[in-house]
Amino acid sequence: MMKTLVVDLGERSYPIYIGDGLLARDELLRTHLAGQQVMIVSNDTVAPLYLHKVQAAVADLQHHAVVLPDGEKYKNWEILNRIFDALLENRCDRKVTVIALGGGVVGDMAGFAAACYQRGVSFIQIPTTLLAQVDSSVGGKTGVNHPLGKNMIGAFHQPNCVVVDTATLATLPDRELSAGLAEVIKYGLIRDMAFLEWLEGHMDALLRRDAATLAEAIERSCRNKAEVVAADERESGVRALLNLGHTFGHAIETGMGYGVWLHGEAVAAGMCMAAALSARLGWISAEDVARVEALVQRARLPVRAPAALDPVRMLEVMAVDKKAQAGTIRLVLLKAVGEAVITAEYDSLLLREVLDDYRQ
Amino acid sequence: MMKTLVVDLGERSYPIYIGDGLLARDELLRTHLAGQQVMIVSNDTVAPLYLHKVQAAVADLQHHAVVLPDGEKYKNWEILNRIFDALLENRCDRKVTVIALGGGVVGDMAGFAAACYQRGVSFIQIPTTLLAQVDSSVGGKTGVNHPLGKNMIGAFHQPNCVVVDTATLATLPDRELSAGLAEVIKYGLIRDMAFLEWLEGHMDALLRRDAATLAEAIERSCRNKAEVVAADERESGVRALLNLGHTFGHAIETGMGYGVWLHGEAVAAGMCMAAALSARLGWISAEDVARVEALVQRARLPVRAPAALDPVRMLEVMAVDKKAQAGTIRLVLLKAVGEAVITAEYDSLLLREVLDDYRQ
Repeated sequence: MMKTLVVDLGERSYPIYIGDGLLARDELLRTHLAGQQVMIVSNDTVAPLYLHKVQAAVADLQHHAVVLPDGEKYKNWEILNRIFDALLENRCDRKVTVIALGGGVVGDMAGFAAACYQRGVSFIQIPTTLLAQVDSSVGGKTGVNHPLGKNMIGAFHQPNCVVVDTATLATLPDRELSAGLAEVIKYGLIRDMAFLEWLEGHMDALLRRDAATLAEAIERSCRNKAEVVAADERESGVRALLNLGHTFGHAIETGMGYGVWLHGEAVAAGMCMAAALSARLGWISAEDVARVEALVQRARLPVRAPAALDPVRMLEVMAVDKKAQAGTIRLVLLKAVGEAVITAEYDSLLLREVLDDYRQ
Repeated sequence: MMKTLVVDLGERSYPIYIGDGLLARDELLRTHLAGQQVMIVSNDTVAPLYLHKVQAAVADLQHHAVVLPDGEKYKNWEILNRIFDALLENRCDRKVTVIALGGGVVGDMAGFAAACYQRGVSFIQIPTTLLAQVDSSVGGKTGVNHPLGKNMIGAFHQPNCVVVDTATLATLPDRELSAGLAEVIKYGLIRDMAFLEWLEGHMDALLRRDAATLAEAIERSCRNKAEVVAADERESGVRALLNLGHTFGHAIETGMGYGVWLHGEAVAAGMCMAAALSARLGWISAEDVARVEALVQRARLPVRAPAALDPVRMLEVMAVDKKAQAGTIRLVLLKAVGEAVITAEYDSLLLREVLDDYRQ
């Protein structure tokens, strides 16, 4: 059974297909190709598992593959350039379709390459991690990291379609499954109390990788994100709510060096810090914070920043975050569990307190 | 006296201001800034001449400058990264405005940096070469070169405004003035017979740098380009006509190595080659070709490709040009002087003949 969700962005609208075994359904990909040329971008973890399936779907077309090293630390211009090299060496023209097969890093890099190659070519996402399925494959954000900041160089570039084959989660390491659940929990926290309660009731089934439960979590997550993105494609307003936990999280990732903590792990700790600051501002109760931390912990995710990370360094990194404006750190905080706001209206001493206290 | 031309692109519309001494008119810049942060991008030829004027206009704001080495050969990712470094080191946020002060290379690189920094920030063009004033500052094309192809990596990113101060042409080397005239002649050839005739009558005044004549040439060129771009922002159709001479020209530039020939010089020879092929197809007369070559020569521009460049190598490069589709080389040719078409319907033996014959 396949679920189809349409991300409504006017002429840039596109469908997300969610289901078990969709990689075998060639027509899903083929109806969204721009022409006869295909460049598949994957990494050296995912390619041995699934590349042959995508290649089979486009076997009669002019197709090539570029396999990148796996990991956030390779999300940089140098590795991105391998995609440009492959496109140019194979004489790909403006009608080429770039297909991202892998997790969020592959999707961000392949998407950014598609955005920039000849000033923009077509793009299809096949996310193979839970994180990419519920987050980075929806909304068109693409890019690479810079030594001075995460995702600082990029573009908005919407895919022609997204194909989520839940069967690919069978090969996902436990730690990455949990990292994906951080973003799933986030949707509940920022805008969907019913989903949060559903997650509290189904966390064990999700960790057991029950197929139907995973599919429902993915669909409800994508639906939440699609609604937010449709309302604010370029992140001038409400879309910023999706960054709950991310300003703290990016500071953890940057401070520790990319790749030491997984993105979802950093976001998980960041959400707990956002909840803690919200409580210290009197917006939510200590019980609410405990509830957030309990769900995060049940997803086998950290609720504190690494002990090794200096709070002063974290503040520095947060000040150059994209969400900062002229040095003021804007944060996504909780007015209630299930209702987030973006604000710079908080006591910075309380922020410093949370940074000091929320360390392992 | 100032002329204002609006490039009509819906919500991305922007004005082009043309006049003598506009760099002293602070308000032109200031009304188009996104916020309080400004990053001026220039090169080491232009910065000593005009940077202080732009800095004076934004003196009370948080402004910084990054000065790049001058030349097409520096239009690459490595040098582009200096802009990202400067933006991040100075903690520029999403409200920063990037100002390009220089020729086409500075404009393309600063514009691409603005397109990619934090997935897109505001951008203002102050073109200081004739080429940039009549061509690259209109239309939103930005990007950098790749070792395997010119302008292969880039974005469409429209400026908030373009300020053309014709006084900056006083310091332009003769060779670059001529290179700019190649694009001016192009507008006449592709769609504006009246302008072509005006150019035939005013070429001497242009070479003498008569201020009023230059201003009129710039305005009529920008108006032609603005009309074409407004009709086809993303180059899905008529905009490709602006590439008259460019497929040949890019092959010359790439074949010789970036920077040996100026872009305008390569385009000039390319336009003559396009005219010659059009004549061999029976579309225009030998007299028409002679007329085109005469005007190009009067502008002190080459009418032939370099003798050192192998025609086989030129064909190879043309096949990976962005205008090529699946190996077929689409060319802009002349149905008449003053009327260009884009076509792949020509005898490739005739193309090869022209490549063989049109060498110095």
